Amino acid sequence: MSTVAMRSNRRNVRIEWGDCDPLGIVFFPRYFAIFDDSTAYLFEAVLGLKKLEVHDAFAFAGFPLVEARARFLIPSRCGDDVVVESTIHQFRKASFDVVHRLTKSGELAVEGFETRVWVVRDESDPDKLKSQPIPREVRDRFAAA
Amino acid sequence: MSTVAMRSNRRNVRIEWGDCDPLGIVFFPRYFAIFDDSTAYLFEAVLGLKKLEVHDAFAFAGFPLVEARARFLIPSRCGDDVVVESTIHQFRKASFDVVHRLTKSGELAVEGFETRVWVVRDESDPDKLKSQPIPREVRDRFAAA
Amino acid sequence: MSTVAMRSNRRNVRIEWGDCDPLGIVFFPRYFAIFDDSTAYLFEAVLGLKKLEVHDAFAFAGFPLVEARARFLIPSRCGDDVVVESTIHQFRKASFDVVHRLTKSGELAVEGFETRVWVVRDESDPDKLKSQPIPREVRDRFAAA
Amino acid sequence: MSTVAMRSNRRNVRIEWGDCDPLGIVFFPRYFAIFDDSTAYLFEAVLGLKKLEVHDAFAFAGFPLVEARARFLIPSRCGDDVVVESTIHQFRKASFDVVHRLTKSGELAVEGFETRVWVVRDESDPDKLKSQPIPREVRDRFAAA
Repeated sequence: MSTVAMRSNRRNVRIEWGDCDPLGIVFFPRYFAIFDDSTAYLFEAVLGLKKLEVHDAFAFAGFPLVEARARFLIPSRCGDDVVVESTIHQFRKASFDVVHRLTKSGELAVEGFETRVWVVRDESDPDKLKSQPIPREVRDRFAAA
Repeated sequence: MSTVAMRSNRRNVRIEWGDCDPLGIVFFPRYFAIFDDSTAYLFEAVLGLKKLEVHDAFAFAGFPLVEARARFLIPSRCGDDVVVESTIHQFRKASFDVVHRLTKSGELAVEGFETRVWVVRDESDPDKLKSQPIPREVRDRFAAA
Repeated sequence: MSTVAMRSNRRNVRIEWGDCDPLGIVFFPRYFAIFDDSTAYLFEAVLGLKKLEVHDAFAFAGFPLVEARARFLIPSRCGDDVVVESTIHQFRKASFDVVHRLTKSGELAVEGFETRVWVVRDESDPDKLKSQPIPREVRDRFAAA
Repeated sequence: MSTVAMRSNRRNVRIEWGDCDPLGIVFFPRYFAIFDDSTAYLFEAVLGLKKLEVHDAFAFAGFPLVEARARFLIPSRCGDDVVVESTIHQFRKASFDVVHRLTKSGELAVEGFETRVWVVRDESDPDKLKSQPIPREVRDRFAAA
């Protein structure tokens, strides 16, 4: 249960017209969507599996959030090319923390924090979700990365 | 500069199909959008003005976020009718804090926190935004509410 | 298989800040989301069931689109209160057409057209969807409405 | 005023978790957003300018839609990698038509059609938009492409 920052993933993101509000800057819920995508890319980079493939490879229905937070330091506009670097900061038994740093021209523009829980569908009621220990192989792959 | 919770506003929100993800539960950035709408409704309830009317009545371009946070306690699904209660917890010189409590059947399902800054367009460059003291009349209306 | 316009449903919609783009007008994909919600409300008004309840009452997984179209006549802005009137124009064996008229101050602002297909999950592969005849009771309820 | 298909642009798009609905397939308004982005990329490819740069280079506030349409042939899911090919099919005086073909593994999955109008801000009222002839240089760049 390491608290050391582990394998991270970087990706380029273009801010689109539809991401922006009447002030001409990103409508902030869109940053959370960008970070959500970025967590999926981080897992894909480390596990070599897309999110739905993780579903098939492991007991896994998803990793919904129990907490999300962001600090908005520099606004971005339509057409801006930004970089998102995503890192898992901690695995607990059934939950984990992801930190995202969105930079623009090298400057930190938005910082995001997610706490997510590993869930499976409840066998007795497939509409219900329940938390589950994160599979050892998943942790190991992140540790080795 | 009161730290006492001031005038709050309640509204009913229906969770829509397009708010939900493949797990069948709300895609969490949508909660932040619901809270953003809720802040606008709070101002409308207290000032008697819609957001764009605030623009005309006061030196105002918007109140973008400097920080947003949410805790997700109970998932919601398409068709759920929830209640959002929004309260300003603090006015500072140019910024303010809003707390949103989203309840489902009376139980707290999501709690949201926003720190926003009052901005105007920079006269020397209308593409730039700069923070500005919150107008006394706006504070007074909230204090009286 | 009537071609006569059947039971329609009207609802009020507030245009929100997050619906709008840097021009200050509604980002057009949001109109399609508003119309999608409106189709769900139309079914709820006629059947007395929310979308997920239809799922339980009938063999039903959803009614995804095979075609969507809209004409944008008058732009709307943040804070505008508009009315959406939704009508089923035709039921075919497994598909149906919905027309949405979004008006602002009584004037037609956006007109939307949807062709949707009634689908169930394929029993041999629950990840697959297949079209299915629209249940007689659903048609009858619309005819009687 | 050619009706011949002109310069097109191809780009790869990943279907994200947040693009998908409880059926596990893309929530259809998201396709319109993907096509909107694709039109911006087409202009960027041909003019060598991002959308906000077009704003500075030409009298231009945007190209909002007067009509949009799509046919949905094959559903896509979270993690699918699709290709969007976007082509201007016709320039008229102040409006133009864009066709988008979204393919998955080489098969046409969604076809989109947009009619857009070139607008500038009204000098007498910057909140108003008015259509304007598409600049000759813009047409010429597309013709030469």
